[in-house]
Amino acid sequence: MATIDVAKPILDRNERLAAENRALFDEAGVFVLDLMASPGAGKTSTILATIAALRDRFNIAVIEGDIASKVDAEKVKAHGIPAVQINTGGACHLESDMIRRAVEALDLDALDLIIIENVGNLVCPTEFYLGEHAKVMILSVPEGHDKPHKYPNIFQISEAVILNKVDTLTVFDFDEAEFEGVVRSLNPSAPIFRVAATKGEGVDAWAEWLAARVEAVRAAAGKEPR
Amino acid sequence: MATIDVAKPILDRNERLAAENRALFDEAGVFVLDLMASPGAGKTSTILATIAALRDRFNIAVIEGDIASKVDAEKVKAHGIPAVQINTGGACHLESDMIRRAVEALDLDALDLIIIENVGNLVCPTEFYLGEHAKVMILSVPEGHDKPHKYPNIFQISEAVILNKVDTLTVFDFDEAEFEGVVRSLNPSAPIFRVAATKGEGVDAWAEWLAARVEAVRAAAGKEPR
Repeated sequence: MATIDVAKPILDRNERLAAENRALFDEAGVFVLDLMASPGAGKTSTILATIAALRDRFNIAVIEGDIASKVDAEKVKAHGIPAVQINTGGACHLESDMIRRAVEALDLDALDLIIIENVGNLVCPTEFYLGEHAKVMILSVPEGHDKPHKYPNIFQISEAVILNKVDTLTVFDFDEAEFEGVVRSLNPSAPIFRVAATKGEGVDAWAEWLAARVEAVRAAAGKEPR
Repeated sequence: MATIDVAKPILDRNERLAAENRALFDEAGVFVLDLMASPGAGKTSTILATIAALRDRFNIAVIEGDIASKVDAEKVKAHGIPAVQINTGGACHLESDMIRRAVEALDLDALDLIIIENVGNLVCPTEFYLGEHAKVMILSVPEGHDKPHKYPNIFQISEAVILNKVDTLTVFDFDEAEFEGVVRSLNPSAPIFRVAATKGEGVDAWAEWLAARVEAVRAAAGKEPR
């Protein structure tokens, strides 16, 4: 396939810049999360709920990736959190050079956690390492329990899976046992967090998981525990 | 950007094969629809509802595009409708050579309508002409009314917009007037069909619009009206 040949140099360049990003993050003791999901699964709502849970403990910034518009960055900034909007102009995923430029607009030494909201897409973002410490995905209940069958890769590479909009489980024909079974077969170790982000439900367990990861990166950089 | 240079030859090859596909469809008098949406927006449910509305009038087949699995093709076949499953193996969209191979498994002369269910993705499928007569998109209410701001291109190129899961409008904070206003600004002519596909609500208006398009292609090929 021609696709493979032409994509390879782009991926190599992306990987190299991503490794440089990662070195910057590790040195500054900043944990970086790449949050992936379909359009409308609740990435921004989950980020806002996560900020509410952790802002007293950590200094947080957000990098928002979208094809167009700056509505998400504005939502985050309205909560007093630094946010940088990346418009990909058509690209279906973020790449590491975009993250580098966004990070240059932030004060890394003053931060503990950067949450990257990737472009709404269950496919393309899975292939691009940005220098993050973990990729995490959100599936929302209205999307249906069959999605791990159809988009297995994103479930395989995610270190945690957030099931969002669980307050609508009674409205949709979503089989939780079937969903959990298929996720387990693809990814035996990833925790599944059940959340209703806009209502703040179930956010604590997810925030605690994330906080432990942030502390580990802070500790490795010689920062005191919070 | 390097991306543009390397993508160009692939797109050219895709366009050439797509034009060949289109010639086959036109000669056989078969209308081909490329249906696009996010994962879980209800593409398969909408296809099943459309089949229920039009199967007595037209001979219909479905081409299902997914990264992996064959659950959608099996759902369609269970209704006695020919279906071909394409697994892209990782690609975020269908291309015209995949459609060509799928069409070879169908009896074009016995058909009036082929519905292609593209990979769940609001970005990549917009860039690839498959030889279809129309691209149509579905947005589902749980995804939120702000999606035209973030994914403008798919709203611009769609000849009709289906708003699905309208039976959940009371559950989600979806501003219909805002949604319609932004869609209108991007695409003044596309009709917006309000549908609850799993309940069969609102399907008639959409099916009538589609039937008129099918009849036009049948007439151009010298077939009698149905």
